[in-house]
Amino acid sequence: MNDSDIASAAAPLRRYALGVEYDGSEFSGWQRLVRPGEPSRPEHAPRGEATVQTTLEQALSFVAGTGIEVVCAGRTDAGVHASCQVVHFDSPVERDPRGWTLGATSRLPPSVCVRWCIPVAPDFHARFSARARRYRYRILNRPVRPALQRQYLSWERRPLDADAMHRAAQALLGENDFSAFRTVHCQAPHARRDLQSIAVRRDGDIVEMEVQANAFLHHMVRNIVGSLLPVGRGDRPEGWIAELLAGRDRTVAGPTAPSAGLVFVGPRYPAECQLPAEVCL
Amino acid sequence: MNDSDIASAAAPLRRYALGVEYDGSEFSGWQRLVRPGEPSRPEHAPRGEATVQTTLEQALSFVAGTGIEVVCAGRTDAGVHASCQVVHFDSPVERDPRGWTLGATSRLPPSVCVRWCIPVAPDFHARFSARARRYRYRILNRPVRPALQRQYLSWERRPLDADAMHRAAQALLGENDFSAFRTVHCQAPHARRDLQSIAVRRDGDIVEMEVQANAFLHHMVRNIVGSLLPVGRGDRPEGWIAELLAGRDRTVAGPTAPSAGLVFVGPRYPAECQLPAEVCL
Repeated sequence: MNDSDIASAAAPLRRYALGVEYDGSEFSGWQRLVRPGEPSRPEHAPRGEATVQTTLEQALSFVAGTGIEVVCAGRTDAGVHASCQVVHFDSPVERDPRGWTLGATSRLPPSVCVRWCIPVAPDFHARFSARARRYRYRILNRPVRPALQRQYLSWERRPLDADAMHRAAQALLGENDFSAFRTVHCQAPHARRDLQSIAVRRDGDIVEMEVQANAFLHHMVRNIVGSLLPVGRGDRPEGWIAELLAGRDRTVAGPTAPSAGLVFVGPRYPAECQLPAEVCL
Repeated sequence: MNDSDIASAAAPLRRYALGVEYDGSEFSGWQRLVRPGEPSRPEHAPRGEATVQTTLEQALSFVAGTGIEVVCAGRTDAGVHASCQVVHFDSPVERDPRGWTLGATSRLPPSVCVRWCIPVAPDFHARFSARARRYRYRILNRPVRPALQRQYLSWERRPLDADAMHRAAQALLGENDFSAFRTVHCQAPHARRDLQSIAVRRDGDIVEMEVQANAFLHHMVRNIVGSLLPVGRGDRPEGWIAELLAGRDRTVAGPTAPSAGLVFVGPRYPAECQLPAEVCL
């Protein structure tokens, strides 16, 4: 890196967007959520106590030579993966995108990498500029638990009717109150979200759900999966999902599906943000 | 398990075949290879010193209540995965297939499971009855190393021409002397193998090779990948693979590709063995 890469301290802040991939199984989530009554920092931090956010900020701060804080498109829970989380940050020093990408990745543990970096306009905001988020959930559907890919799969031993799950899920489309699929810990001011697409399909032993909405409530994807599973097993009729949605009662819906099967595929931004195609609308 | 499941000690041995899936990254291989001059058991066994074979035998011996030894279709190296390794074993006690499958899996670490169990004829042999073996190798082809799926991928940062790799690989088809792709540690009496199919294709960022042969030499798949990579990068012409094969000289071929990308998909048996479809010809 030569001197011309380093702007003077008086230079205005430069804003960058990053695409970040991570294996959530080694983290306590994007950020640590402190609930009332919990100590903010346990005396003996267990393995996996680290957060993706802190880990990423440390790597970027090393590259910048000064403290960097990031804002993400969508916070993920403990154990949830991301194939393209997007963050933005402001830096008093300029680096070329390759410098941020490779420099930060070289300082990150094997479970995290920076896939790309783009300089963005000062009003770009990873969270508020995003128009949609996409998640994928994968279930291994066979009598025996997974060994290969177990870090990235949930498991259901009873046969699932993926077509029935797909049809049932279509009842969720559109702008709805998703209170039935929202954890009690959810801090969002209201439960209305616009669910833009949801598809369930089978590929061999794998049943996969892809879902896109303008935004999601806390645990919303995993709670939808947890309610589609009884439909897939034949324990509930296809119309049950529509009933749950209309009832807005979390206590009668299915349990929260395990985190391992969930990947945050990424947010979607308007074309004028000039980000890589995979995160454009 | 009730009394009728347990045959008397005088009963003849019963032979079973198992389909076994494992994540090789946590093992030193199917079995530990002791080379001349190496101690047979290091004083401080590193993490990953366990072998798949020993781990599986311990679980089966627990289910049987007596020592069980297994014979596998194809030994895999340290770090190499299997989606359907096949083993056979003889047991003085009878258990129903569900008992072996679920009983053994419940005693195995998360990185191994038994997918199925079938009683087989006394002359079935996991290794000698197999007519073919199939392997898959996956390479993530992008500028940045993988975080997600890193346990199951190798990585190449320079762009690969998968079509050129595919065309070059076709030179290996048929019965040939594969000395150019055989490690010096290979103990096979000769290097002739019948390579039945080989295909390289791209799916997004992933370049995948699938190869089937009657049998493989030690490191043969990883050495073929290691020689296809310079072709994919454009550093060698497509005809280089045919030249290497004809030259039979390991020292001029490409380096051994990393183990993480390799999965032993499984062996193939004649239909009369009456095994699950995925391991039948």
